[in-house]
Amino acid sequence: MNLNIALLPGDGIGPEVLDQAVKCLQAVEETFNHNFIYKEAFVGAIAIDKKGNPLPDNTLKLCKEADAVLFGAIGDPKYDNNPNAKVRPEQGLLKLRKELGLFTNIRPVKVFPTLIDNSPLKKEIISGTDFTIYRELTGGIYFGEKKINDEGTVASDLCEYSEKEISRIAHLAFKAAKNRSNKLTLVDKANVLESSRLWRKVVTKIGQSYPEVTLDFLFVDNAAMQIILNPSQFDVILTENMFGDIISDEGSVIGGSIGLLASASVGDENALFEPIHGSYPQAKGKDIANPVASILSSAMLLEHFGLFEEAMAVREAVDKSLKKGIVTPDLNEKSQYGTNQVGDFIANNI
Amino acid sequence: MNLNIALLPGDGIGPEVLDQAVKCLQAVEETFNHNFIYKEAFVGAIAIDKKGNPLPDNTLKLCKEADAVLFGAIGDPKYDNNPNAKVRPEQGLLKLRKELGLFTNIRPVKVFPTLIDNSPLKKEIISGTDFTIYRELTGGIYFGEKKINDEGTVASDLCEYSEKEISRIAHLAFKAAKNRSNKLTLVDKANVLESSRLWRKVVTKIGQSYPEVTLDFLFVDNAAMQIILNPSQFDVILTENMFGDIISDEGSVIGGSIGLLASASVGDENALFEPIHGSYPQAKGKDIANPVASILSSAMLLEHFGLFEEAMAVREAVDKSLKKGIVTPDLNEKSQYGTNQVGDFIANNI
Ligand SMILES: CC(C)[C@H](C(=O)O)[C@@H](O)C(=O)O
Ligand SMILES: CC(C)[C@H](C(=O)O)[C@@H](O)C(=O)O
Repeated sequence: MNLNIALLPGDGIGPEVLDQAVKCLQAVEETFNHNFIYKEAFVGAIAIDKKGNPLPDNTLKLCKEADAVLFGAIGDPKYDNNPNAKVRPEQGLLKLRKELGLFTNIRPVKVFPTLIDNSPLKKEIISGTDFTIYRELTGGIYFGEKKINDEGTVASDLCEYSEKEISRIAHLAFKAAKNRSNKLTLVDKANVLESSRLWRKVVTKIGQSYPEVTLDFLFVDNAAMQIILNPSQFDVILTENMFGDIISDEGSVIGGSIGLLASASVGDENALFEPIHGSYPQAKGKDIANPVASILSSAMLLEHFGLFEEAMAVREAVDKSLKKGIVTPDLNEKSQYGTNQVGDFIANNI
Repeated sequence: MNLNIALLPGDGIGPEVLDQAVKCLQAVEETFNHNFIYKEAFVGAIAIDKKGNPLPDNTLKLCKEADAVLFGAIGDPKYDNNPNAKVRPEQGLLKLRKELGLFTNIRPVKVFPTLIDNSPLKKEIISGTDFTIYRELTGGIYFGEKKINDEGTVASDLCEYSEKEISRIAHLAFKAAKNRSNKLTLVDKANVLESSRLWRKVVTKIGQSYPEVTLDFLFVDNAAMQIILNPSQFDVILTENMFGDIISDEGSVIGGSIGLLASASVGDENALFEPIHGSYPQAKGKDIANPVASILSSAMLLEHFGLFEEAMAVREAVDKSLKKGIVTPDLNEKSQYGTNQVGDFIANNI
């Protein structure tokens, strides 16, 4: 297969972990006889520094023309805590999601048996956890009208959803549930929010076309408890943008190793794959960042194009590295392996 | 001291746990020579059933005239999952908060050493956890304009905050931090929301009047992780309404026993005290509901009126019941003690 892949390393540890993912994709090319073309561009803080824009035009163009985007991370402390900053790295990511129409963010939450003791949660609570969060990514309060009055004393954000925005992601989530354990949980705040009531109505209606899937509902506050109290009860969770941001990060602690979690953001015409960890600027250039999340993002990319055997080869190589303890220090304090060595080991085992 | 206390038992297990709190207040009256007057009214589903209104006028009037409100719980499954229901029990609670001007919800999160093994989290993660969440309660997306178009295909909720709404709760939170460990964490989403940027600006400015308090900021998604990964890092958390709803329920799992957690909702002229658990309809009338959260709510009530010694007597009686294992089955499967017995034990030990 021929694939054009846009590489957006971004900030902090983004470039170094992305390098490892590319190594693995190259190993896949060789082993399975594919032809991937990689083109790189700036995004985030580095793009602001170099071009004054967190998402420069040529970066967006590159992404639109590519078959898929492989993303590193964005964010730099110098742009945080500055409420008056006119450009922020995050704007680049949000604009990219919107412009590419990436309306669904998919985040698998799984416990790796070899690492079960790394979790802050007790083993008996998390064992068997294996769910996927479908988070709406281009609507809601992230993209609704923002206002601030002239005196700077009243500010607002609008959370708006249309039936169309809800139904397109709902179909994807129901299909995912059909391919898994036939359970879909809608997380909302329908006892308070009008937009949540629309979500409930639309999702309930769509559920009639998926009779094999059991649909249930959870208020977001209760969901925030259940994810910790009994995470193995979930199969597919569907939710709106802001709630998804919160509960998917919450879910990421279950496995005890945020450095292992990948995500896909998909739309009708494009797809982007990224580790869920941030830019972790303190670790930049130290060869200590865990490359596994980025590598597993490349596995999600392969699956997206139907290359299941290839993705499996990547996942098996990752499992092998975990089993053999070829891991970065975040997973094992005593480990001597760096980002590059772990990347090499995994790539060599594909 | 003379106090007029409005009792709002509400739904489900509300009435039976509230009874135990009243027992304890009566014991305090006797022991410390106070005079509390109790008047009861309907709220929630039972108020809809009896009066067609989740917050009947006479209930609101009673609360306004009282010095404080002691609340049970609200909610009934027959009103859930019905997006078309015209009246919902929750509306009663929201209206009560708004009408009484209860702009600050205070939720202590603490680990009871005797119960540390009940937590889904590992002991070493949670030991030493002792923080308090200050959640804004009468603004934000809960109370902003709600819209749905005529076709029922587009719905929205407005999240709006004014400087005034932010500053009044911020002062309370800074004062609380001063009386604790001098650390305040503002949880927001200032990298995305205009209203969050206003929160950051206002809270930063107010912080200058509390130089002894260290102020830091955490994005809500990161906060949702940190609360589980390292809960003992927090002292006072300040946040807006919706984020507070989610992270305070998330925080409630740390101690492993939601049946122990109390909350206060305070304003300039009134105050309401309630357990954070819900109406738990499945347990209604079975004499198995844990009365401790309701009893500790009454301790918060006493503290609110400066009756610190009295509150301490209640807390010590609670500790004694926990240490002696005089607890309901939620804390110990093998326990034979019911709601009433636990309430009696605690009241008798005041
Ligand atoms: C960086 C930020 C804008 C972003 C979000 O809130 O969506 C991030 O937290 C994420 O979840 O991808
Ligand atoms: C019942 C509901 C409206 C309420 C809220 O969301 O505020 C509850 O969850 C709470 O936290 O007190």
